[in-house]
Amino acid sequence: MGIRIGLGVDFHQLAEGRELWIGGVLIPYHKGGLGHSDADVLLHAICDALLGAACLGDIGVHFPDTDQQYKNIDSKILLQQSIELIRAEGYRVINIDSTLCLQEPKIKPYIEQMQEVISTIAGIGKRDISVKATTTEQMGFVGRKEGVVAYASALLETI
Amino acid sequence: MGIRIGLGVDFHQLAEGRELWIGGVLIPYHKGGLGHSDADVLLHAICDALLGAACLGDIGVHFPDTDQQYKNIDSKILLQQSIELIRAEGYRVINIDSTLCLQEPKIKPYIEQMQEVISTIAGIGKRDISVKATTTEQMGFVGRKEGVVAYASALLETI
Amino acid sequence: MGIRIGLGVDFHQLAEGRELWIGGVLIPYHKGGLGHSDADVLLHAICDALLGAACLGDIGVHFPDTDQQYKNIDSKILLQQSIELIRAEGYRVINIDSTLCLQEPKIKPYIEQMQEVISTIAGIGKRDISVKATTTEQMGFVGRKEGVVAYASALLETI
Repeated sequence: MGIRIGLGVDFHQLAEGRELWIGGVLIPYHKGGLGHSDADVLLHAICDALLGAACLGDIGVHFPDTDQQYKNIDSKILLQQSIELIRAEGYRVINIDSTLCLQEPKIKPYIEQMQEVISTIAGIGKRDISVKATTTEQMGFVGRKEGVVAYASALLETI
Repeated sequence: MGIRIGLGVDFHQLAEGRELWIGGVLIPYHKGGLGHSDADVLLHAICDALLGAACLGDIGVHFPDTDQQYKNIDSKILLQQSIELIRAEGYRVINIDSTLCLQEPKIKPYIEQMQEVISTIAGIGKRDISVKATTTEQMGFVGRKEGVVAYASALLETI
Repeated sequence: MGIRIGLGVDFHQLAEGRELWIGGVLIPYHKGGLGHSDADVLLHAICDALLGAACLGDIGVHFPDTDQQYKNIDSKILLQQSIELIRAEGYRVINIDSTLCLQEPKIKPYIEQMQEVISTIAGIGKRDISVKATTTEQMGFVGRKEGVVAYASALLETI
């Protein structure tokens, strides 16, 4: 059995007047992620963990932020395409674990919905995608509510 | 064989008049982690990696900082409970690797003791729990000695 | 089959008048990593992931920055020695995934060369070492171009 590890990290600024998309879910908040796409930091970290595990480059290589076709794109589409890319290489996801670092709002009420969204796109069970959250205890740019960071780890196996 | 990956990240402020608990070990220093529990950033990151690998939520779900029973609690108890939670799901730990980011004090003299504490609680060998340390080269809130960050990765297998 | 996970994180300041070595490749830029060695943040994170997975301590234990023999040393030598250390413990690398966080310069043009350098030293295929890159969206010390951070994850198996 071939097995592979991947690790993704992503950063987005939070800005007034933007929608806050995290894990494919729209979360009510007065700021949202700033970016070329919908700036879904969690899905981007997951895409990067999947692409990295399969050694397929990163999200910036496949979905460049200079490309107009990705302007304001729903990151669920990027996740779908990342899953297709790793499948084409002969891999499937064993499990994904992720952590979102943000000071507010509380995302606990949305985690189950994120797991549903991600597991459906990835074609895995809801128990194979974990989303965790932490504040940075008011430290740094996350603590000042200027931005958000996400980490994701993934384990793949050959089909 | 079922195998699963987990990744935990935790943050705590350092404050005067608090004890510095890291990896279950009390480290002499004029500041300590600020938090509802004993603020052991390393054990918290490890708990989160274990819970995440088993898709059991995060440390905030199981041990909420609004719950008085966890006030000033010894994080070794949280680690013990996290281990019990993953065992109840049918998993055991293959290995854990972790990195502590703090500017001072040097924790190298305490690492072997941390490995003993953690391996005893987790029921694994001392060679199956790795603790590493780095400064952030004086950058950011860790570099200014305002806080501490820990990362932990874990691999589980089905019993 | 014995399988093990490792996670490395490394930080370096960027300073005028230093060479910028990343992933074993010299990158044209007006600043470079500040450190006792050549300050190759990516190779250091990878070394730490390998050493951590094998529970062999960290890069500071094996290559202390107080030791003159490591003054300005080429980190490719540290990677070579880390690989030898894990081999001596009976492990080989399955795959490595890594992410470099830096604001500028763009390192995409150098990634293939990094993969070649690292895979040759590690004795693995080029498709078993992934290097990804992201900015921090101008946030924090990385965003202010004061420093660089690298994360690496590794999967080892017993020989």
